[in-house]
Parts: sequence; structure tokens; C-alpha cells
Amino acid sequence: MNIAVAQSGGPTCAINASLVGVFRESLKEPSIDAIFGSVNGVEGIIRDHLIDLKTMIRSNEDMELLRQTPSTVLGSCRYKLPDWQEDESTYQNIVQVLKRRQIGAFFYIGGNDSMDTVQKLSSYFKEIELDVKVMGIPKTIDNDLCVTDHTPGFGSAAKYVATTMQEIIRDSSVYSIPSVTIVEIMGRHAGWLTASSAILHAYGDPAPHLVYVPETHFSADRFLRDVEQEMAKHKAVIIAVSEGIEVPEGVQSGTVDVFGHKYLSGIGKYLEQLVREKIGCKVRSIELNVMQRCSSHLCSKTDIDEAEQIGAAGVQCALRGETGRVVVFRRMHNMPYTVVIESADASQVANREKFLPHEFLTPAGNNISEAAMAYLLPLIQGEIKLQMNGGIPAHFTIQESVLK
Amino acid sequence: MNIAVAQSGGPTCAINASLVGVFRESLKEPSIDAIFGSVNGVEGIIRDHLIDLKTMIRSNEDMELLRQTPSTVLGSCRYKLPDWQEDESTYQNIVQVLKRRQIGAFFYIGGNDSMDTVQKLSSYFKEIELDVKVMGIPKTIDNDLCVTDHTPGFGSAAKYVATTMQEIIRDSSVYSIPSVTIVEIMGRHAGWLTASSAILHAYGDPAPHLVYVPETHFSADRFLRDVEQEMAKHKAVIIAVSEGIEVPEGVQSGTVDVFGHKYLSGIGKYLEQLVREKIGCKVRSIELNVMQRCSSHLCSKTDIDEAEQIGAAGVQCALRGETGRVVVFRRMHNMPYTVVIESADASQVANREKFLPHEFLTPAGNNISEAAMAYLLPLIQGEIKLQMNGGIPAHFTIQESVLK
Repeated sequence: MNIAVAQSGGPTCAINASLVGVFRESLKEPSIDAIFGSVNGVEGIIRDHLIDLKTMIRSNEDMELLRQTPSTVLGSCRYKLPDWQEDESTYQNIVQVLKRRQIGAFFYIGGNDSMDTVQKLSSYFKEIELDVKVMGIPKTIDNDLCVTDHTPGFGSAAKYVATTMQEIIRDSSVYSIPSVTIVEIMGRHAGWLTASSAILHAYGDPAPHLVYVPETHFSADRFLRDVEQEMAKHKAVIIAVSEGIEVPEGVQSGTVDVFGHKYLSGIGKYLEQLVREKIGCKVRSIELNVMQRCSSHLCSKTDIDEAEQIGAAGVQCALRGETGRVVVFRRMHNMPYTVVIESADASQVANREKFLPHEFLTPAGNNISEAAMAYLLPLIQGEIKLQMNGGIPAHFTIQESVLK
Repeated sequence: MNIAVAQSGGPTCAINASLVGVFRESLKEPSIDAIFGSVNGVEGIIRDHLIDLKTMIRSNEDMELLRQTPSTVLGSCRYKLPDWQEDESTYQNIVQVLKRRQIGAFFYIGGNDSMDTVQKLSSYFKEIELDVKVMGIPKTIDNDLCVTDHTPGFGSAAKYVATTMQEIIRDSSVYSIPSVTIVEIMGRHAGWLTASSAILHAYGDPAPHLVYVPETHFSADRFLRDVEQEMAKHKAVIIAVSEGIEVPEGVQSGTVDVFGHKYLSGIGKYLEQLVREKIGCKVRSIELNVMQRCSSHLCSKTDIDEAEQIGAAGVQCALRGETGRVVVFRRMHNMPYTVVIESADASQVANREKFLPHEFLTPAGNNISEAAMAYLLPLIQGEIKLQMNGGIPAHFTIQESVLK
């Protein structure tokens, strides 16, 4: 039997480690012959654009490099598979390719949208009695997937956010005049990544002094009162804010992707303008932007190791006959941190979002509580010993011409 | 004799290493008793806000931590000293404090504005025959100081820019549709830091495909033609642009600091809008923002070691009787990279800027030439083994109450 693996959705620092997990585990299995990488997610299967990964990843050194390379080495997509009842031709196309390539299992590394694809494909294969297993392997820096304790990619992004927030605090505190610094953080509609900026509290730093997440109602008046209160206490006030907080119409660009998600941006600039106009002090906003999801030079070893393990577990599930399911983490202990990998039905994960629990927020709703720390801290632990190449990290890449 | 040291201007990753250099070298000198840190640059001397550094930095471990802590641990300022002929009272104030504290040498770590202060103070002390040596120790991520081969702080910022550019390239290349990514980089009126994003060319990466620096005339029409040409060759076009390129009035915010420098911002957003309107493809802009100057988790060991050495050399110059001078690097060889530390008159450095030489640009003026690589590469080499504290880098800090 051959297998295929694809990567989908927004890049993370851990999505290539999950690919390594699938690849390395498959190499161990005598029943698995070719390991195909599907280029640009499920689109690669539709277009029969598959590459033989054994010709690309040729050594354990290659696998180590791939583990420290951010983003999706096989490319990605935001393709939404239609319902088969509406458009069966795409499914027939996929089936044809899978049969011709003798593919018995397909592994899809992605977020909640990709789990929609896992669910739809596996249902269709059951319907037509095609024995191809479909397994979802989770990833997203947003940490907003249901069922799983956390998602691969989140721990590295959280480590980047906490580290960078600490550096921005140092940078923002040097002048003698009062100032406000607003740091805009990703996470779509969930505040997980923004909450991780408050990890510094666990190490005695009072900053960020204010944290706004989408889980609480945002009021501009309340925000300005909060800022003025903190300015009375601190010379340099540092604020973390989620890209997805609720603000007046028109602030966000409003462009919508194929899954109906708005591309969010501009919250930091909006709040900066608000402070400048209404308070009139020195103020600036900083967008951590894509660096949050691609700064693999600062990844969490816990995250990268787990991402590889959950990829490998996905292969074992498929070999045991599972399909239409997603591998997930269940946390057994915070200290010593212990997780086990299980699987769940893709329908429990697809198209759903998981939000910060109420107890992770302070009663005033403008900061993160101590309760969040026991959850967050284990996920950012450990560093990968980076392979450097003349002063910059070495990356594993596939030639552009092969991916075209 | 006692000495005083202060930090000034915009933060860097290396300015605390230079402080360690002054401190450690002074500890070795039996002629030096107290080592005072002046809070918020020269303002600390004017206000007699000096702290005894020996009570703060108590071990070699503290010094190691300080070396890996970004920004100015003693605070900073953008204070412009008036000419003494216009306002002698500030100078008399300073002299009073220096005499009362028995300070025989003052070390000012800063950029070209701070060297203006070094020049003015030393001239005044000569005028009134006060035996206090004043030495400038250079720093700036902009690398725009004259005389010196390069400035402490630049190498770490360049390493951050090159590493982050490589990660953004990975992040930007995953989708199958054509796209343009614009990365806005600091450096005021000089293109040194933007040029360092092209270090990737030395390792075989064709990106960034276009690089715009303030040293060449910018034309929007020419830019759009360049982008279209690159789009014909590459699916994901990556562009590096200096914050200081010449664009239409109103794009930059135009706020001016006390030295008459404009605060630059918004170039990336301006070009993003230009591409969206005139070409109409997927486009985004990313501002590397203050992370360029404070990401000490990714500093250049060469830079940090040199920053400490040049701080120590400043102490030796003062002990030899020099005043009104700045310690500078002179490069002897690119390979093996060899620098020596000399000193130059502060007037040669103060209020001047150094620009990218013509030969570091391609003939078309829209990219960086191979000639720049021999200069840039040695500066980003080596990594500091970071001390971590529960998943994030440990920093050395002084209590806010002491700095108030």
C-alpha cells in the first residue's frame, strides 16, 4: 500500500514536524511502500500533483532540518471541498488518483477547515465502499480546535509571543516620558495566543498590564479608563490585544476567505489612534504579524516533539483501521506535564472553535488569570538546538520547480 | 576617581554589552572606585540621578545576563544638549554633579546624536579646565555612524532581519496563487539594515527579489514595473524596503524629534496599497518594527562580544587621557574577519550619517550586490548560548522604583 500526506491552512512552526512524524513512522512499516506528498494540500490530490517523499527526504539529517523549518514544505491551500451530493465530480477525480496511485491512507495536517475535508472524504469513501483511510492531524497557532487539549504549532507561537512581549517591554520602558505600547496578536476569534503574552506574569513581570481577548466584550470607553488607570501606576503601559476583538465596523478590512472567515487586521492601529486622540500621550502599536507563526528559530521543543509524535500516531490509527478521525492530545497532568494521544471523530473538530475558558480571565476581563499559567507554561518549554548555516538557521526546502 | 556611564538613543541588543564592557574593565582598574550608572542618559547627570552599579551588578552571572538583555538597562533619552554659549546653566549643573560625585570620566554609549553630547561636554570641560574625560561608545542598529567600520547593535539586528526574512519567505510561498509580500525595515536614511535582508542571496535564495533603500531614488512607476517583472518569474515575490525611502508627502507621519529627525513609518502600507490598486494581486506588508532592535534572543555573538570589547576600550582611552573622542572599529580583513579598535574625534562622528556605498547596490538600484556580502556576513556570525528561565530568555533588570 502507498500513502499520501498533505498540509493545509495557515503555516506554523510545527506543521513540518508532523510531516516528519508521518514520514518516519511510515518508513518503519513494512506494509507501506511509497510515501507521497500532496502539493498544496488536497488540491495536489485533485490535480495528481504528488511527489515521492523518499526521493526528497533522504536522511535523518534532512528530517532534523525539516523539523526546524517553518511553514508547509509541501505548500498549502484554503480549498473548501464541496458536499459530494452537490458536486461528485471532484470526489470522483480524487478517487481516480488514489486508485491509480494505490493510496490506502491519506493524512491531512491542518486546522478546523481541514478537518471538514477529512470528514467529507471519509464519509464519501464509506459511501462508495472505498478502502482508503483518512486521518486528520491537527495544527494551528490559534489553539482553537475542539476536543484536543492543545494544537501543535500553538506552543511555539506562544513561546515566540511571550519572548517577544518581554523584549518589547524592555524596549518600551527606556524613556522617562509616559507611553503606551499596544501589541496586536493573532488567534482569530480565540484569545489563546494573546493570553500567552501574559506568561510573563508567572515570572514576576507586571506587564502586559492589560490584555484584551475576543472572549470578552470590548468597549472603547472602558479601554480608555483602563489605560488611564494603568498610566497612573506605570510609566510605560504595555497592552496585548487580539486581532479578533469586537470593534466598530470598518476597522477590520472585512475581506472574507472561502470558509467565510474575515481577514482581521488593524485593531492595534485603531487602538493606537484612540489613545492618541483621547489621552494624547506617546503611543505606538506593534503587529507581531506572520512572525508569530513562522519564527521557528525560537520554537518550543515540547511543541515540535509533540507535533512529530501526533503525526506518527496518525499513521498508527490508520493502520489500526480508523478513518474520518483526528488524533488529539489529552492532558493527564500539568506537573509533571504528561499528555497521551487519542483519536476523536472529525465531526467533533471540523468547523468548530474552542475559546478561552472563563476562569483563564481576570474578573475585570482585561487581563489573564493565574489559572491560565498551569495550562500554558508546559507548552513553551525547551529549545531545539538549531543547525545554523553561516549565521542564519538552515532550512529544508524543495525546489520551486518541483512544487509548480 | 569615580566614573559614570550612560546609555542614549534608540535601544539595541548590544548596548547593555557595551555597558558590561565599561563596567568589567573599570573593575580591573585600581584607580577607579565607584562606577555610577546615569539614569536616562545624560539627563541622569543633570538631575543627579546616578546609581552605584556595583550594588546592582553583583556577579559574573549578572554580567552574562546583562549581555543577553536587550534595550538600555539604565534607561535612555533623546535629550539634545544646548550650546554652552547659549545656555551655560545646564553645563554648570552637570559640572556641579560631576565634582560632588568625584567623577573623572564619563562614558556615553549612543548614536550620532549622543556623540554631539560627547563633543559639547568635552569642549566645555576643556574651556573651563575641568579634568573630566568624556568618551563616546558607538551603538545603533542603523549602522550609519561615520569613521567606524560598523556599529555595535547592527550585527544583531542584521542577523534578526536576515533570519526573519528567510522565515517570511517560507511563510509567503505556500499558496498556489501569485502574491507579493513587502517587508518594511528600519535604518532611518541609510539602507544598511535593509541590505542585510539580502544576505540570503549568499546562501542561494533568490529572495528578496527586490530591495529598495534610501540611497537610490524611488519611483512608484519603476517599482510597479519591477514587481510585474518579478511576478512573471516567481509565484511569491518578496520585497524588502527601507522605512526611509523617498515617497510622496503625507505617507510618513512627519512627526519630528528634538534632533529634527522625522519618525518614519507607513512605507510598507503605502506600497501594499499601490500594488493592490495598480496590479490587483494578493499583497501584504509586514513591519519588522522594534523587534529588529530588541530581539536579543537571536543576537550575533560577534556583535555582542565586540560591543563589550569596544566598551572596555573606551575605558582604556580615557585612562590614557583621551577626551572628546569615540572608540571605533577598523576592519583589517574580511576573511579571516579581523577588526582593531581605535579612536576618532567625536566631531567626525557627531550629527553625520554614513550611507551604503554605490557598489553595494546592483546597477538597476533595486537589489543588493554581491560586493555587500563580504562586508555583511562576518557581522552576523555566532550565537550566544541563552540562559532560559522556564521557556523564555532570562533578563537582567533594575527595579522600576530605582530608575524613577
